[in-house]
Formats: sequence, structure tokens, C-alpha cells
Amino acid sequence: MTSRPDEAFARALAAIAPLDRAAVAEAGAHQARLTKPRGALGRLEDLGAQLAGIAAEAPPPVPDPATVVVFAGDHGVWAERVTPWPQEVTAQMVSTFCAGGAAINVLARHVGAGVLVVDVGVKAPLDPSPALVDRKVRPGTANITTEPAMTVDEARLALDVGAQVAADTVAAGARCLVTGDMGIANTTASAALIAAFTGRVAADVTGRGTGIDDLTWARKVRVVERALARARSDGTLTARPDPLAVLASLGGLEMAALAGFAIGGAAARVPVVVDGVVALAGALAGAALAPLATGCWVAGHRSVEPGASAALDHLGLEPVLDLGMRLGEGSGACLALPVLQAAAKVLREMATFDTAGVTEKT
Amino acid sequence: MTSRPDEAFARALAAIAPLDRAAVAEAGAHQARLTKPRGALGRLEDLGAQLAGIAAEAPPPVPDPATVVVFAGDHGVWAERVTPWPQEVTAQMVSTFCAGGAAINVLARHVGAGVLVVDVGVKAPLDPSPALVDRKVRPGTANITTEPAMTVDEARLALDVGAQVAADTVAAGARCLVTGDMGIANTTASAALIAAFTGRVAADVTGRGTGIDDLTWARKVRVVERALARARSDGTLTARPDPLAVLASLGGLEMAALAGFAIGGAAARVPVVVDGVVALAGALAGAALAPLATGCWVAGHRSVEPGASAALDHLGLEPVLDLGMRLGEGSGACLALPVLQAAAKVLREMATFDTAGVTEKT
Repeated sequence: MTSRPDEAFARALAAIAPLDRAAVAEAGAHQARLTKPRGALGRLEDLGAQLAGIAAEAPPPVPDPATVVVFAGDHGVWAERVTPWPQEVTAQMVSTFCAGGAAINVLARHVGAGVLVVDVGVKAPLDPSPALVDRKVRPGTANITTEPAMTVDEARLALDVGAQVAADTVAAGARCLVTGDMGIANTTASAALIAAFTGRVAADVTGRGTGIDDLTWARKVRVVERALARARSDGTLTARPDPLAVLASLGGLEMAALAGFAIGGAAARVPVVVDGVVALAGALAGAALAPLATGCWVAGHRSVEPGASAALDHLGLEPVLDLGMRLGEGSGACLALPVLQAAAKVLREMATFDTAGVTEKT
Repeated sequence: MTSRPDEAFARALAAIAPLDRAAVAEAGAHQARLTKPRGALGRLEDLGAQLAGIAAEAPPPVPDPATVVVFAGDHGVWAERVTPWPQEVTAQMVSTFCAGGAAINVLARHVGAGVLVVDVGVKAPLDPSPALVDRKVRPGTANITTEPAMTVDEARLALDVGAQVAADTVAAGARCLVTGDMGIANTTASAALIAAFTGRVAADVTGRGTGIDDLTWARKVRVVERALARARSDGTLTARPDPLAVLASLGGLEMAALAGFAIGGAAARVPVVVDGVVALAGALAGAALAPLATGCWVAGHRSVEPGASAALDHLGLEPVLDLGMRLGEGSGACLALPVLQAAAKVLREMATFDTAGVTEKT
């Protein structure tokens, strides 16, 4: 554990600022001069304006290179039999990420992004690897049905890990951050966080994760309900709860790190492409801690997990892709990257009516 | 005009065959061995299986390099004031494509695809360019409210241009074809074709094209109704019409070429990524002429044009992207290319549970 509590996260919080309105307006005005009917590129034009607002520059820089950071952690709630996958798979998948054979490796290579894996809370000891950063806060969370996932200090440490990794990754040259996650049982903790932050009931935000059967799903819903009831009874989950306390009580180490990472990216003024339900659970905590940070976030895709849609609605984010994916790892966000980069290139490279000698409509 | 009527198109029609079922099944079985929960990559897994079926090879080859072919033509129905854009813009945009400054050039460069422009019916004479192929069948169509767009022989010639260009492009090394189109007023002819092939009424399939006002839209709907009425009264549009006669009567030279192109790609067993409403109007004609060709088609995106959704439903195609785009040129299809290529790479490059030493679920 090398992070210094709160330092990187506090710096990031202090640096958060709104999108640059002049750059957004200039991007919009430039879109109107390009050789195409106004608005014809749809979402691409909105993304281009957002990128300009993030960078305070129009046309905006292309968000390239990008780095996918996969935060990995384990979950005490795994013991409640919410998933048929053994807990050891978290560590095995971390090894697969480091060896380059997982979906996120294939997809990141395809879109020209790097992959960094950060152990923020895997239960098992991990073999060192050049692709792996050891920032383990604790070896997995406690079982949220009976006690808080972690202490508030541990949540602060995990937020700090995320913020520090974001700052380091941008300092190393990344111009776009992509959220990734790995943790067996983490969709259960995500459902609890999403229920807590959106006010929805457990059954509405609990999904089938890796593809569980009806019986396991019903058990998973009850587990989320028990966790929420426990957090209410210990005074954490109130009508206006403290976001940090909720994160510590119901979350996971990777969600806390993802919240810090998404805020850290916004502080560094690079776009943060947010993946599926686990990343969105972290993003809800992040948005509660730093509402203006959301201006720098792009929802990569709409996961099939119901909690993802609930979180997207709450955050006011419209996903770029909707491909029926539910893998995590950053896989959906990674596939959105070419669209985001295209949005910047359209503004930077397209001819205008004037320069191309094309007649405008009457 | 260099095409020999029917030869390339007849060869393509004769070569159309169903997807290879063994390769589709082998791709599905391999997906289940990869280090991810079954089905977790959603649409990517379906696309991977389709690519395997097209190539009769599992894992399938990556559909790269790809070439966007932009078929350009003018429309006599422009005279009915269905658009505020001058007709000369078709030729000006062809020049912009050749100069590399249009949206499709930027997007194709971004995804590593080539761009070829084929003049199949632009009204004005065009300056030669290395990026431009002159296969002009006639300088624009006739006004479809009063007479057939072209003769059946001209429609055959345009189909042949498309099929020949597909064959030539694949022979030159392309492993994926992307449809593109340019033609001022071509969403009007597309609406007429889509109404004819899907049986929907004009108002349901007529859109705002480049972004017309309410008055122009109402006029455009009446123009489409008049064209359909004319085709009914001259005996072309019947309960079971001849697809070629409908194409000639209500279509456009670029739609006819696109139909031949999409069939030619299927004949060459490469995926054809179909763009928006104009490409889909051509695809409807193509599917009527060669129903099995649709197995090799991928709908790149859902254009905001209502006719596009009507055509997608009729063709049974689920679009990859939904980005609120309505530009044409192949722009939406081009952005779907990275997703399609990712689908192949997942099958080719991901580790299996066995090789990665990851424990499967209980």
C-alpha cells in the first residue's frame, strides 16, 4: 500500500471545474460551417462539443492515446452464493489481463489503447507483472449483509488510489481514460450502491451479472435487500446520506477506486469513458462527491444490467453504444473509443463550405 | 459507360449462397470456451458468428481492409422542391470526397478504410480524379412523380455497375465493403422505394433528409404519394410487383448500384456494412432480387430517417450503432466497422478457460 490518504483525491476535488462554455460554443459554431447539413452527425456533434469543453479548446484534441485501467477487488458478499463463479477467478482473470488474453486486452489492442491493471483489493496475493500495479488497500471487502464493506478510511484510501492512478496515467501521456473493473460478486455490491444512490428498490437494479439462474437471482435480490437494511439500521443509509459513508458501507474497493479515477480524469481535463454497471456504481459515488466531474464523463455503452440503466438515468448520461454487453473489464467503454475519437477528428479535419467550394442550402 | 449489361450482376446472383452453418456453429462453440461468461459480449458474439458464416471459416478472418464505395447520382424529383439544397451540390460533394475533406473521408481514414467514389448518375460532368470511377449510366433520373426514374435496362446497367465494383474492390484486396451514397433529393426517391417494398404509407417513411422544415416535409410526403400513385397507375406497383421494375420506376441510379454492390459483396463472401436510408432503400431492392444475400449484410447504424427503421424491420436487420446520424455518404456504416472487426478479433485472439488456467463456474 503506497498511497497517502486523501492527497491525490483532495487535489483532484479541488481542480474540478465546469466545461469551458466558450469552447463548447465555438465547437458548435464550427460544426455549422462543415460540409454537411446541420446536426446530421447526431451524437458525434454533441461529443465533439463536449470534448472541446473538456479541453477548453476548439477544435478539441483527439482523445488518443487512451489507457484502460482495470481496478480489481474481491467481495465478502461472495459468501452469500450470489454467483456460481469461484472467488479465485478474480485473481486468475488479473493474471489473464497481465498475459494479454482477456477480452479487454483484445479490444484495447484493437482500438489502440493501453491496459493497466490495479490491484486495489484482490483477496489472494498476486504475482508481480509489468502490467500490474499493487495498490491493495485490503484483501477484499467484508460481507455487506452483516457489516460495512470497509471503513471510511479505507474508502478514502481507495478513492486516493484511483485519483493518483488517473493523475499518473495522464502524466504518462494518456489523453483519455477508460474505466475497467474485475471482481467476482461485484455486480451485487454495485446493485446495493446503485439502490442507495438512486433510491430504487433492490429488485429493480439487481441483474444477472455473469448470467445467473432464477433461483440465484432471487437470492441475490434478497442479499442486496439485506445489505440495504443493514446500512439503514446502522444509520448510514438515510434520506440524505453521506456519499463517502455509503461507498464504504455498501461498495467495493474497485468502485471506490473507480470513483476516484473518474474524478481524477475530470481534474486532469481528459475525457473519462465509463463502462458498465460496476463503473457506473462508482460513478454515482463520484458524482455525489464531485457533481461537476460528470461533465468530463462519457458513458461508453448501455450494459444489459438493469442497474446500469438506473445509474445512467440518475447521472443524466446517454450511452454511446448499446450492444447487449455485460462483461465488465472496460470492454463496452473500450469499443466506444473510436466513436469518441471520430467526434474530435470531424471537427479537426472536415472541410468547411467555404474551403470546399460547396454551395449552402437556400 | 463501360459496363456490360447484366454480366457482373448475373454472375453475382448465381454465386449467392446461404451462410456456412458449420462455421456459425463452430464460432458459437468457441465463444463458449473463451474467458468470459457465456453471451457476455452480446452483439459482438452474434457478429462474430455471422462473420464466420460469411467466410465459412471459424474463427473468421478480420474484415480488414475495408473500402467505402460512395455511389453518386442525381434525381429528377429534385425539381419538386423537396430539398433546399441546389442540385449542383451532388457534384460539389463528389469533388469534396475526391479531395478528402468530407465527413466520410475523415471517418474512413479514422477506421483505416479506403474511399472510392463511383459516378453512376451525376447530372453534371465531373472532373477526373484518381478516387473517382466514371460509370455514369445516365445524367440523373427522370422526375418520378410523372415518369419512371429510369428504364429497366438502365436499372440493370446500374445493378451491374454495383456488382462489378464490388467484385473489383474485393479483387483489389478489400475484405469488407461499406456502402456510401451521395445525391441531392435521394431521400425522396428512397422513401418512395421503401414505401413500395414495405407496403407502408408515404408519411410513415418520409423523413426530413438534410433537415427540412414542416412545409417542405409536407410537400415531400405529397411528392412521394404522387410518385407511388403514378407507379400504381402505370401498372408497375402491384400487390406482387417485380423488384427490378419497382427499382427502375421509383428508385435512383445510386440505389440500383447499391443493390448490385450489396449482392456483389455477398457473392464474394465478404461482409457488406449497410449505411442509412438510401443504402437501405437499395438493400430492399437487393433483398427482393436475392433474398439470401442479406446473410452477408450488417446494418451499420439506425439513421434517424423513419424510412431507415421501416427498411431495417422489413430486412430483419438489427443495426450496430444508433447515434442519431442522418448524413449518408456511408458515415454511420463506417463507424460500425471497428465493432465488426472487434467481433472477429475476439474469436481469434482471446484466451480460452483451458489455456488461461481460469476456473469455470460451478
